[in-house]
Amino acid sequence: MEFKSDKGFITEDFLLETTAAKRLYHEYAKHMPIIDYHNHLSPEKIAANLPVNNIADAWLAGDHYKWRAMRANGVEEKFISGNASNEEKFKKWAETVPYTVKNPLFHWTHLELKSYFKIDKILQPSTASEIYVSANEILSKTTPEDLFQAMKVEVVCTTDDPLDSLEHHQKISERAFKTKVLPTFRPDKLYFIEDQNFLNYIARLSETVNGEIKDLKSLLESIEKRVTFFHKNGCRISDFGLGNLDVEDFTDNEVDYILKKRLQKKELLPIEIQKYRSCLLLALAKMYHKYDWVQQYHLGAIRDTNQRLKNLIGADAGCDSIGENVAATAMVKFFGTLDLEEKLAKTITYNLNPSQNEVFATMMGNYAGDVPGKMQWGSAWWFLDQQDGMEKQITTLSNLGLLSRFIGMLTDSRSFLSFPRHEYFRRILCNVIGNDMEHGSVPNDPEFFGKLVQNICYYNAKNYFSFEN
Amino acid sequence: MEFKSDKGFITEDFLLETTAAKRLYHEYAKHMPIIDYHNHLSPEKIAANLPVNNIADAWLAGDHYKWRAMRANGVEEKFISGNASNEEKFKKWAETVPYTVKNPLFHWTHLELKSYFKIDKILQPSTASEIYVSANEILSKTTPEDLFQAMKVEVVCTTDDPLDSLEHHQKISERAFKTKVLPTFRPDKLYFIEDQNFLNYIARLSETVNGEIKDLKSLLESIEKRVTFFHKNGCRISDFGLGNLDVEDFTDNEVDYILKKRLQKKELLPIEIQKYRSCLLLALAKMYHKYDWVQQYHLGAIRDTNQRLKNLIGADAGCDSIGENVAATAMVKFFGTLDLEEKLAKTITYNLNPSQNEVFATMMGNYAGDVPGKMQWGSAWWFLDQQDGMEKQITTLSNLGLLSRFIGMLTDSRSFLSFPRHEYFRRILCNVIGNDMEHGSVPNDPEFFGKLVQNICYYNAKNYFSFEN
Amino acid sequence: MEFKSDKGFITEDFLLETTAAKRLYHEYAKHMPIIDYHNHLSPEKIAANLPVNNIADAWLAGDHYKWRAMRANGVEEKFISGNASNEEKFKKWAETVPYTVKNPLFHWTHLELKSYFKIDKILQPSTASEIYVSANEILSKTTPEDLFQAMKVEVVCTTDDPLDSLEHHQKISERAFKTKVLPTFRPDKLYFIEDQNFLNYIARLSETVNGEIKDLKSLLESIEKRVTFFHKNGCRISDFGLGNLDVEDFTDNEVDYILKKRLQKKELLPIEIQKYRSCLLLALAKMYHKYDWVQQYHLGAIRDTNQRLKNLIGADAGCDSIGENVAATAMVKFFGTLDLEEKLAKTITYNLNPSQNEVFATMMGNYAGDVPGKMQWGSAWWFLDQQDGMEKQITTLSNLGLLSRFIGMLTDSRSFLSFPRHEYFRRILCNVIGNDMEHGSVPNDPEFFGKLVQNICYYNAKNYFSFEN
Repeated sequence: MEFKSDKGFITEDFLLETTAAKRLYHEYAKHMPIIDYHNHLSPEKIAANLPVNNIADAWLAGDHYKWRAMRANGVEEKFISGNASNEEKFKKWAETVPYTVKNPLFHWTHLELKSYFKIDKILQPSTASEIYVSANEILSKTTPEDLFQAMKVEVVCTTDDPLDSLEHHQKISERAFKTKVLPTFRPDKLYFIEDQNFLNYIARLSETVNGEIKDLKSLLESIEKRVTFFHKNGCRISDFGLGNLDVEDFTDNEVDYILKKRLQKKELLPIEIQKYRSCLLLALAKMYHKYDWVQQYHLGAIRDTNQRLKNLIGADAGCDSIGENVAATAMVKFFGTLDLEEKLAKTITYNLNPSQNEVFATMMGNYAGDVPGKMQWGSAWWFLDQQDGMEKQITTLSNLGLLSRFIGMLTDSRSFLSFPRHEYFRRILCNVIGNDMEHGSVPNDPEFFGKLVQNICYYNAKNYFSFEN
Repeated sequence: MEFKSDKGFITEDFLLETTAAKRLYHEYAKHMPIIDYHNHLSPEKIAANLPVNNIADAWLAGDHYKWRAMRANGVEEKFISGNASNEEKFKKWAETVPYTVKNPLFHWTHLELKSYFKIDKILQPSTASEIYVSANEILSKTTPEDLFQAMKVEVVCTTDDPLDSLEHHQKISERAFKTKVLPTFRPDKLYFIEDQNFLNYIARLSETVNGEIKDLKSLLESIEKRVTFFHKNGCRISDFGLGNLDVEDFTDNEVDYILKKRLQKKELLPIEIQKYRSCLLLALAKMYHKYDWVQQYHLGAIRDTNQRLKNLIGADAGCDSIGENVAATAMVKFFGTLDLEEKLAKTITYNLNPSQNEVFATMMGNYAGDVPGKMQWGSAWWFLDQQDGMEKQITTLSNLGLLSRFIGMLTDSRSFLSFPRHEYFRRILCNVIGNDMEHGSVPNDPEFFGKLVQNICYYNAKNYFSFEN
Repeated sequence: MEFKSDKGFITEDFLLETTAAKRLYHEYAKHMPIIDYHNHLSPEKIAANLPVNNIADAWLAGDHYKWRAMRANGVEEKFISGNASNEEKFKKWAETVPYTVKNPLFHWTHLELKSYFKIDKILQPSTASEIYVSANEILSKTTPEDLFQAMKVEVVCTTDDPLDSLEHHQKISERAFKTKVLPTFRPDKLYFIEDQNFLNYIARLSETVNGEIKDLKSLLESIEKRVTFFHKNGCRISDFGLGNLDVEDFTDNEVDYILKKRLQKKELLPIEIQKYRSCLLLALAKMYHKYDWVQQYHLGAIRDTNQRLKNLIGADAGCDSIGENVAATAMVKFFGTLDLEEKLAKTITYNLNPSQNEVFATMMGNYAGDVPGKMQWGSAWWFLDQQDGMEKQITTLSNLGLLSRFIGMLTDSRSFLSFPRHEYFRRILCNVIGNDMEHGSVPNDPEFFGKLVQNICYYNAKNYFSFEN
């Protein structure tokens, strides 16, 4: 399958259906800087700031969206995660692109070609070689910093392990880097006490903070040392990526006993695992509140579902998908407890199963207060990060909360070329609101909505996070 | 945030996108009387029929939708549920209104300003004082009856405790009140046997019916006395507001034992609580059938999730939200049992979690029969009572059942100013159908659809309920 | 309720909103042959190939969609499943039709009248007699083969019990029947080990394969004999219709013990039932892989919910509906195990609860590979088989997988008059894609999308299934 003409289809008014939508996007949204408050970019690569070089590397090395599409298209694994050359892999991807039509990959691919490379062509077999050469020529002279600047990226928040030395972040902050690059504290490895690597992880934590970890107290003290270390290095956000929140009743004594049992290499009962996790979640959340951080919870993925591919290429092989965990009663217990103790930090929750949209949207409203938009139901995440998913998030948030206080988009990406997803979001946001203006369901006031759109694209996030200047 | 112009945006054709939609609304729907068969208005206030007086009181005293929006906007609790003055609270609400744009509150607010006060302005800081004065001037001369008449409200069904003396309903029916005001039997307090107030409640029931309650038999007899008392006072509808339906197997002997155990102030096991509840649900449903009442079930809320605010201002603090209880197998057991025994009353079910829309819509079809539309999947409820939620309910009901037999809208409100929600529903209904007519997916027959719309707005409900004339 | 004019509303461009959509449908989609790879047609009737004769018989005898609509409309059971005459039943259906407006029945009915009978009128009381006479006149001269040919039906896959003699399929294949009619292996009766008819079924299986069934080994051998028998008779597809997949851990020894226990007429524990089922599911799936069949799983119905009607007219009384079983973790265990052992056949899954759309769509992506579109998330099923349901399936599949590799529509019907559902699907598909073309969200390339549409309507299915020529 190839398109007859290889001419690109991303026009100036892409996705903008009405005059009001076009005006909102072009006059208000598109020039806003980007605060990308959650992504998975490599601090090491940012610090090195070497040219990105190869588009196959940038696009295909870590992008499980593309891997999934190629597999669904029947491409051999050799050309996906295997040892085929960059150029071979790129050609297989180019063959797949026309088959992705109507999938967000089709839009992302062509937005990125246009934004970064001024390439206004459809990627397909007939254009693959030419695009490969042109893009690589540009990338051979383009560093991460250049890419950030081209997209007006003001802040980038990476996702980091509590044990990370943050040396790359320090190196970046010592240079006069134009984009602020800050760490995010993501302690998932502390949560999975039953994991075979847990004890090793605790040993490394102990070493890092230079103190023995022998009980709950010393564990939490060690963790807080890392929190303060991250804080000193500019971190103001935490994250957790969990199937569900564990919220068992526990006492500190119980969890102390459970932790010691685990440190003695004994196997834990399911209820013990849950009690430990519940304790850890609460203790961390209180630390986040103490340091005025924003806490994020990404809930509901079902991960590493394909053991064959995991054996072949390891975790995160592109075999994660949408799970069916429930979350409402756990969130009530978790956020309710923190709120009652007046230790509830600013919070962003993200659900992966869209059938939970309304549950999450209304739940956040139960703990609102203090500051505008304190409790955020986050932007459409992962599989939902596409036009339909974003429109649903925007509509549901509008109906069940305050869209005007929404802190907007983030890339959540591993790629330096993903920032046009902000453009994508902004076009969709402007289109939804512009259409309402033209249909008369809201006042036709471009300045008001221009400001509202700018708030969602930039200012709300800027005010929400306590980043240092 | 303020709109540049304070001119209102609710035009004559608000939400009506096509000529057919406009015609349906203006020629057929808008003049229909209202049968508001479920709301939470105060019978005492209706009976007193004193001027409503203050818009802050009418709008803000009990409206948890507005409370939630104000909290999400960062308004201090003092101005929400606290001791700030009416005028201060109104100003804080006016500040919040522009931030609610695209939330149903923004539409409701301006529909109500226009419908009751002929105020065609946007409520925001610049217009707050003026609107406060104008609205209050009108409300100082306007009673509940006036408000009902202005909206052509033919019937109002309040929601009442089985122990209610119904003195206010009696007083209303003795006067030549133009709107029929009937009680609804809502025995939630009998369901929660484990509640600390249960025994006290049973004592009051015992006193009210002037008979000892010492076992299941005497409990059910006492309840039936209240059912007959309500029936004599015009009640033809029951209601239950529950997280989920309990449908455990039980024998009367078991439940008799359980009730006695509870009357002896002993604590019940979870399974005992469920057996008692299951028995009560069935016994009540059979009474409703016997008296040819309509039974309503509002399922799936998760309530009072914020203990801090509950401590501060009590239950119903605006911290209820959408839960994740399942309902399908319980409904099969419950409605299936009643149907098999030929004791299934006309039924309306309402789900709060919209991911259950299709489950509820198809479930009602399993027990259809006897009369057209016997089993109703009720109008979009609570958080779903907005344009998107109503469109989904209308579309899903159309696809999985018979829209033509739908009994339509109800306000479910605590405010005397909420009746324009019927206008809102009617506009949306006419728009959905009118658009279909213009798109050619149904015959373009305005008279047919005009009649269908009038049925949904008024006649279906009129025929469905067995109110006395 | 009757329409003023009885003129039909199904125009040439029915459901096609844009020029691009019209072009896609008329130039590319509409002439494609039909591969109806899943339905419930009677092989006996196809083999007999006698005139269908009576429209009431064809439409009302087995169509629980219509039964449900008539019940919801208050029609007496006598005219639905009872002993009223064909003509009486048809008149009651004609009375109901105007009340089904906006339900898919309204579209299906008029598409079928137009496609098979060239009747361009609305069915309602005023036209009932005339339509009854005209349709029956045509049906008195029209056989199933004629009906297939009129709709260009190239392949029909019926749904058959493993014990079926396939005599009718053999008879059909011996004749020069223009439509290929193939069996599908649907072993649901082997799954429900706890069912009172299970032992009798095993006895019949034993007799059919002429071998004793005394343990797990002999059971699986007997089943495989039937699989090979079906294979020889052209079967290349299996099916299962289950509430949920059971995926308990088991050993062959355990299941051997459980089966023997059951053969001794002892009652099984729930866990034993689950282990047996889990074993059976896996064993069958591996056979399907061995024979290069496609396996289908229809998941999530809740069946026979109305005991009163079941007592009256038996199973499948039109009282099945959408259940709330979860499926994600079970699918991970089931498909993950098969994939790891490299025994995962091509698979189509269908969910009945649309809140699981995204779960199913992403789950299939976890096990993609080998051939394009190996893992299919099937077309909108049963209650979801209507415009809204199909649009959602198309959109979600597009966003989360590859629409271009979709094998498209099937009727799943018991009626010889249901093939216009393919037309319905094709119109909707062309409309969705055509609208995208006109809105500029995809390249405006009619040839490319024409081909894509033809693939989804025909070629993808043709390539996917290994039917013999």
